[in-house]
Amino acid sequence: MTATPPLLPPPSPGLLDHHCHSVTVAELDDAAFASLLTESDRPPAAGTDPFDSALGLAVRRWCPPALGLPAHASATDYLTRRRALGAREATRRLLRAAGLSALLVDTGLTSAAGRPMLSLSELAELGGGAVREVVRLESVAERLAAHAPAAADWPCALRDALTTALGQAVGAKSVLAYRTGLDLAALAERPDRAETVRAAGVWLAGSTGRLAEPVLLRHLLWTAVDLCAQRTPPLPLQLHTGFGDPDLTLHRADPSLLTGFIRAVEPTGVPLVLLHGYPYHRQAGWLAQVFPHVYTDTGLTLSHLGPRAVDILGELLELAPFGKVLFSTDGYGLPELHLTGAAQFRHALAGLLTAWQAASSCTPADAARLTALLGTTNAERLYAV
Amino acid sequence: MTATPPLLPPPSPGLLDHHCHSVTVAELDDAAFASLLTESDRPPAAGTDPFDSALGLAVRRWCPPALGLPAHASATDYLTRRRALGAREATRRLLRAAGLSALLVDTGLTSAAGRPMLSLSELAELGGGAVREVVRLESVAERLAAHAPAAADWPCALRDALTTALGQAVGAKSVLAYRTGLDLAALAERPDRAETVRAAGVWLAGSTGRLAEPVLLRHLLWTAVDLCAQRTPPLPLQLHTGFGDPDLTLHRADPSLLTGFIRAVEPTGVPLVLLHGYPYHRQAGWLAQVFPHVYTDTGLTLSHLGPRAVDILGELLELAPFGKVLFSTDGYGLPELHLTGAAQFRHALAGLLTAWQAASSCTPADAARLTALLGTTNAERLYAV
Amino acid sequence: MTATPPLLPPPSPGLLDHHCHSVTVAELDDAAFASLLTESDRPPAAGTDPFDSALGLAVRRWCPPALGLPAHASATDYLTRRRALGAREATRRLLRAAGLSALLVDTGLTSAAGRPMLSLSELAELGGGAVREVVRLESVAERLAAHAPAAADWPCALRDALTTALGQAVGAKSVLAYRTGLDLAALAERPDRAETVRAAGVWLAGSTGRLAEPVLLRHLLWTAVDLCAQRTPPLPLQLHTGFGDPDLTLHRADPSLLTGFIRAVEPTGVPLVLLHGYPYHRQAGWLAQVFPHVYTDTGLTLSHLGPRAVDILGELLELAPFGKVLFSTDGYGLPELHLTGAAQFRHALAGLLTAWQAASSCTPADAARLTALLGTTNAERLYAV
Repeated sequence: MTATPPLLPPPSPGLLDHHCHSVTVAELDDAAFASLLTESDRPPAAGTDPFDSALGLAVRRWCPPALGLPAHASATDYLTRRRALGAREATRRLLRAAGLSALLVDTGLTSAAGRPMLSLSELAELGGGAVREVVRLESVAERLAAHAPAAADWPCALRDALTTALGQAVGAKSVLAYRTGLDLAALAERPDRAETVRAAGVWLAGSTGRLAEPVLLRHLLWTAVDLCAQRTPPLPLQLHTGFGDPDLTLHRADPSLLTGFIRAVEPTGVPLVLLHGYPYHRQAGWLAQVFPHVYTDTGLTLSHLGPRAVDILGELLELAPFGKVLFSTDGYGLPELHLTGAAQFRHALAGLLTAWQAASSCTPADAARLTALLGTTNAERLYAV
Repeated sequence: MTATPPLLPPPSPGLLDHHCHSVTVAELDDAAFASLLTESDRPPAAGTDPFDSALGLAVRRWCPPALGLPAHASATDYLTRRRALGAREATRRLLRAAGLSALLVDTGLTSAAGRPMLSLSELAELGGGAVREVVRLESVAERLAAHAPAAADWPCALRDALTTALGQAVGAKSVLAYRTGLDLAALAERPDRAETVRAAGVWLAGSTGRLAEPVLLRHLLWTAVDLCAQRTPPLPLQLHTGFGDPDLTLHRADPSLLTGFIRAVEPTGVPLVLLHGYPYHRQAGWLAQVFPHVYTDTGLTLSHLGPRAVDILGELLELAPFGKVLFSTDGYGLPELHLTGAAQFRHALAGLLTAWQAASSCTPADAARLTALLGTTNAERLYAV
Repeated sequence: MTATPPLLPPPSPGLLDHHCHSVTVAELDDAAFASLLTESDRPPAAGTDPFDSALGLAVRRWCPPALGLPAHASATDYLTRRRALGAREATRRLLRAAGLSALLVDTGLTSAAGRPMLSLSELAELGGGAVREVVRLESVAERLAAHAPAAADWPCALRDALTTALGQAVGAKSVLAYRTGLDLAALAERPDRAETVRAAGVWLAGSTGRLAEPVLLRHLLWTAVDLCAQRTPPLPLQLHTGFGDPDLTLHRADPSLLTGFIRAVEPTGVPLVLLHGYPYHRQAGWLAQVFPHVYTDTGLTLSHLGPRAVDILGELLELAPFGKVLFSTDGYGLPELHLTGAAQFRHALAGLLTAWQAASSCTPADAARLTALLGTTNAERLYAV
């Protein structure tokens, strides 16, 4: 590893990344690195290059300078330099360049491209920001199932497992969109004990692993809602919506499909955070406007859309109240995605607000307030961090 | 009330607002005023401010000058000034600054934030523009139900009530999207007398009030279509589509869901006006291109999207023929919304057409023709006003 | 016909139009010409003019210079000049001005506005570019049905007819979106022989003509997939998605509805090309990112959206890998649509990439690579032409 050069001062002010994952510091070959630049879990089509994408352009724009290369360095030059520094040192520099004051980390994924990811404490140490946990509900249920509880004990055991898991967490997260889609029948109703135990019996008797059983997913989500509601203030519940990997079917990830569930959750006081949303982010914005307990997110989208980030951020701010939109990176596996997410957000927001002021759409004071809200204040208020 | 200063000359030419509501001149406290700046009917989330929204920015941009304050005055300064002038005088100034030559008013709503709204003649007198009525179908049915007719008389009585209501009107309007959604089964077919009477029997025997009974809604809509078709030229029928208050479920308000109904109405010659549409405005534009009797609307969307109005107006003009897009404000309750709607439209259209000319996409003559079509000519032709 | 003036050199480099139709050289009256400027198959609404549309602006921008008139000539002047030149000479000039190195032509449509269209060899001779065939599946089935085969012979006879039709073709195309919509039940499964023969019996016994029978459409599509898979490399299968004429129902043409089919086709290796897609082009982009065998298209959309082409091209490049986006014109009937499609693409891509470079979003080398990929390289790789 080369000697560590002095880091540039991190961008100020630090951003509160309300939704991301950990990273791996394993050395990655070209294919493994590229596999983390796409939502696909397949090899790229013959003749195509994952760097030739909007996200690829953004990564090449923002990351090379953190490793001492000029912006827009080629993928080859970048990967060569990354290896010369070593993955750990590169990760340290990339995370620190991101300027994240805090990371709320979904701990449901523990590996990336087949390599283990850092623990929360390792991530905090290397990245230099505070790290807090967001509990992925389905992972808790799947870990519990691995212990083969009796079906009759499932409701109680799940409640206990979730209570423990949520103990130190700042939020919960559901990936229901990946399991059945958001158009799950009767999602707005808590399943009763009998049907839950029946469903648990079937699932636990089979090859458990991945939880995709509709009744158990509903039961899991509502158990989480009830536990989140018991906290003061209530713990936010994040929901994956919109695009992601090919496990999901896109039109079944439209957040508007959650409307019945959103109405049913409203009396509990639990905030619902609609992650990503794209290409249904306008639908998410409407939900955030009309339901006080609904929030939206900038993550994944601003990174993946590369040069289009200013336009998309504009779309995200059409109907969503400015007090309901939260910055995140959704960085996963590669620290490049944390830096790119933060840089895209800062750059897009600055670009958008400059244009708005030039067009007399808002004042400098409005722009400053909006910047603070999206980057930190909204998340601090919501997650009480 | 202070002495009335000379008003600025209204913007020229006047716009024909083909879809709006009346206003209240009651004095409003901060919360009541803010409640009319959002489609939500709930209190805002703790820590959030309804003025911190795209619509809030637009209201603060366009309205303070009409009350003698600089553009972008703070909400506090604005509301203080509004109260000093008195709500009636402020309303007079705001409406006149909007420069609306005529307002086609949906009379289905009679109060806003719990305060009564002006009658059509009061609105005309205060605002200075011609005022014509658009009849909200569901309100006619609900008023009729309050007189407890026999179920067997429902078809006849409804037809009579609608005939009377439409007598002086320039259009009809349906809010089906708020009642069952636009994906109502068999919407493309007139229900027969027997099932209508049966449904009326059930509904009239219960707590009537709000009409959400599917068969009766279909019957109502088709009765209106048939009455509209008898007029020469046929009376336009407006349909709420796209975003609105949380009574509706957004994906069930996609105007594409009306396609079967649109095909079934085509032979009657009744024009269908798809209001709002956002975020399905591109779908609405396609319907306007391929079906001669379908029209689209700019209202609500251009106001609510604030700084994004130029972009969205561009989207509205992608597939919709320029002869099929109609200006409206959808102003409701607050005269600020009428002024903001008109100013947003004028500003966005001017901005868009300036950009198109700068890019050699159209000529000055094209821009002038488009401006006249959207602002007045299309609505004059369609509503024969 | 006037003497042929020297043509301007065609734009360089030539574009590979991977999806278009032939043209008619019949002399067209104003109404017939206008009828080809819209996806509607109805007369325009009274008082509206099909030239007053985003597509109309684009045609008036790009086509008059090819006929020796200034850009933005009026529709009247343009049509007068076109007739003075004669339709054949005008067509020759328009097609050559388009600068298409090759045209992959869907041969399913043989007339436009009631007039016959040129054969492939006539089109190649007049237009000056290479012409290759894309076979429209439904047309093959309908031609076969006209010979009244026995139902029991349908599977075999269809397979033979498709094998013959695909012999010299570079691709196949399905218009399932126009027949049942893309949300066809069980589309992801090959129907078995018994149900196919049963469905063929019903269809062949009735008034055949247009094939809209769900089981036969599934069988047709899967027969084509299996035949395409036998080629080396596998033959691409194009699917109409998104907007088109009023035969389709827009929300049933969302390419996301194909996800189950896409997953089922993946093991065969047959590339699927999602044509058009608008207003669901963002959904198409996601499918192209996550499934290696899925590709997207710029055609129809960039022409129809006129002044909005730069913005839309940006949207098309949000999630779709740059190696998966293909240029096309979808020109049909009027050679104006081929020229407009090509000019819109060139102009929008240049405008977008200039803006991206000005914003430091990419380098000149990135822009050059992207230009080559979209305009020719991707299609050459995919269709092996």
